[in-house]
Amino acid sequence: MAAEIVNPRSDSKTHDTADAAGLSSPDEPFDPAFALHRGGKMAVQATVPIRDKDDLSLAYTPGVAKVCSAIAENPELVHDYTWKSQVVAVVTDGTAVLGLGDIGPEASLPVMEGKAILFKQFGGVDAVPIALATTDADEIVDTVVRLAPSFGGVNLEDISAPRCFEIERKLQERLDIPVFHDDQHGTAVVTLAALRNAAKLSGRTLGDLRAVISGAGAAGVAIAKFLLEAGIGDVAVADRKGIVSGDRTDLTDVKRELAEITNRAGITGSLETALAGADVFIGVSGGTVPEPAVASMAPGAFVFAMANPNPEVHPDVAHKYAAVVATGRSDYPNQINNVLAFPGIFAGALQVRASRITEGMKIAAANALADVVGDELAADYVIPSPFDERVAPAVTAAVAAAARAEGVARR
Amino acid sequence: MAAEIVNPRSDSKTHDTADAAGLSSPDEPFDPAFALHRGGKMAVQATVPIRDKDDLSLAYTPGVAKVCSAIAENPELVHDYTWKSQVVAVVTDGTAVLGLGDIGPEASLPVMEGKAILFKQFGGVDAVPIALATTDADEIVDTVVRLAPSFGGVNLEDISAPRCFEIERKLQERLDIPVFHDDQHGTAVVTLAALRNAAKLSGRTLGDLRAVISGAGAAGVAIAKFLLEAGIGDVAVADRKGIVSGDRTDLTDVKRELAEITNRAGITGSLETALAGADVFIGVSGGTVPEPAVASMAPGAFVFAMANPNPEVHPDVAHKYAAVVATGRSDYPNQINNVLAFPGIFAGALQVRASRITEGMKIAAANALADVVGDELAADYVIPSPFDERVAPAVTAAVAAAARAEGVARR
Repeated sequence: MAAEIVNPRSDSKTHDTADAAGLSSPDEPFDPAFALHRGGKMAVQATVPIRDKDDLSLAYTPGVAKVCSAIAENPELVHDYTWKSQVVAVVTDGTAVLGLGDIGPEASLPVMEGKAILFKQFGGVDAVPIALATTDADEIVDTVVRLAPSFGGVNLEDISAPRCFEIERKLQERLDIPVFHDDQHGTAVVTLAALRNAAKLSGRTLGDLRAVISGAGAAGVAIAKFLLEAGIGDVAVADRKGIVSGDRTDLTDVKRELAEITNRAGITGSLETALAGADVFIGVSGGTVPEPAVASMAPGAFVFAMANPNPEVHPDVAHKYAAVVATGRSDYPNQINNVLAFPGIFAGALQVRASRITEGMKIAAANALADVVGDELAADYVIPSPFDERVAPAVTAAVAAAARAEGVARR
Repeated sequence: MAAEIVNPRSDSKTHDTADAAGLSSPDEPFDPAFALHRGGKMAVQATVPIRDKDDLSLAYTPGVAKVCSAIAENPELVHDYTWKSQVVAVVTDGTAVLGLGDIGPEASLPVMEGKAILFKQFGGVDAVPIALATTDADEIVDTVVRLAPSFGGVNLEDISAPRCFEIERKLQERLDIPVFHDDQHGTAVVTLAALRNAAKLSGRTLGDLRAVISGAGAAGVAIAKFLLEAGIGDVAVADRKGIVSGDRTDLTDVKRELAEITNRAGITGSLETALAGADVFIGVSGGTVPEPAVASMAPGAFVFAMANPNPEVHPDVAHKYAAVVATGRSDYPNQINNVLAFPGIFAGALQVRASRITEGMKIAAANALADVVGDELAADYVIPSPFDERVAPAVTAAVAAAARAEGVARR
């Protein structure tokens, strides 16, 4: 997939002196991350020539008028004759950026640009960073609805819970293009893929497993729902106050719904209580799980400690007790990285002009991702590397096929 | 300026059969404009490498977090470490697209994409098409304000009058980045440049000239105001009901203001009446000016008949009476083409991070554009070709210098 990188602004990357950077801290400019980010990480390019007036009269006036008129008569043609069907808006309000929290739209832009170039690099999907100057859920929804004619899909990013759930739901109701909150569903898809392979490795099925999720934010909620959708035996979710269960009186709407559909075992109390005898730990919370709690899990357990940069259970500790260990870090095996999912999911959805991304399309993505590992499956290889070039084509094809099968494809 | 064009989707341009196009009209698919537009005209590209996990850890997590934190502490750094300062939103509501009128946001996208690639090709400025699903002025303003953190400038495009005036004014009040309605000011800048050279050719100054503008929409209003700003002797504007003058009772707010500042000669009645003895005709209306009215103009007149594809006065007719003839068409000499102005104007404004585009910056752009013609000035060469590579650098430098001189530059 990875196309050759062209850097039209390579000159600008050399101005990494303290003076040019305008930074007060003298050590920052010499950090390679700052040098790399100078001038941004992306650009727009024309894909048609504009060498002379003949070119101009085709790509712009008067030639373009015929194309506009054709679309005005038959709106579906916008997918054929513009970049709409290959460009995704990466939309944030800057409220839940990485582990940094609510840092605002401007400060979130480097992440959104990063996301945009990952879309391009791994999925061949064009993407545009849109960091909004509002955190009001209805304003965000209205704004994205107004932007929608220009885009083939919307990737919501780093919007804090619980607003992210409402925003995604309302946008899905109002738009006929895919709307996908990657912090929820991308994470859930990759987690399911890894979990499916871990189960396979130990001769079990998802139905045999009881999982405990630490974190009831965007990722925790989505993973819980998605694992249930995929047929997991049981899953309980813990927030900072303990297991989300029906006896609690402090639950938000989202968590109350979670209490109804999760935790069939009816566990109450702390995360540690829930971990006793559990088959799977999934950490999307930060914080640290005490070693005795890890030790109390069932034999042959799986520990997916995905907080970055500090996993909830250090891999060295996890390996003492668990059969399979995964993290969010690139310097350990089994990295649960969203980039394994979102480029292919959008590429597949856009390829068939899907009106939405269904549960079936996400399940198909997870299965395709798990299948890439194939016969090489091992405890330190339950999920492919982000740089495995088989990943995006496999996910793209599976998602496109699932969209067709589920009747949400428009071609 | 013109960078080499790369076409990563060249394959997709070959599917120009009737079947693939999905067009009902059998002749359309064989129009080269449709073949060229297939798949759109633009793409996004990464300007930094993502070859391996080390690259990924700089361009995305964890490296990007340091850059985000630095911007959160010092918001001005967003200009240094993202593409914000080199990307312009090309915003429309699809209500006044070319000569096609109100065709809606989707159908306007080919024009917006065209505009975006002209920004890139001629000014080195990245641009993103944003066609909005609303025509309500306040909603457009609110939406663009919310988008603004992601962009270094806003180019308003093909928004119908009189809403375009209100939208531009409100956005300029609320944003600290340049907001520029190209249909107004781009046209005005290029018109002034051509007029200045035409005057020079005939040994006159702007102050010696009385101009008549046909059309009181976005372009007509802006040209009138700008020519007054630049020192023209007199200018009158005609709409469909005749000369905009104080005796009329049917004027909108915008036209009432126009009546106050234009038409010092106090002409009332028809366009034809105003043309008698006039030195300059500027057509931005469509329609046709009767030949006797052209014949009634002053000796050595200038006829700028800019309607596309049919000039208000055919060049063959105009040449019978006028000393200098200009059109909006590329197949006649002296093409008044906005692409001569907007790429350099935004490039200059972004270069110095101007907070707005002032009258002085527009005057500087017009003068720089006129000066490119230099000693080669002739009746059929009062304005450079859009493909003259001296144009954008000259306009960029002049606009950046003017922004500094006027105190709106931030660096």
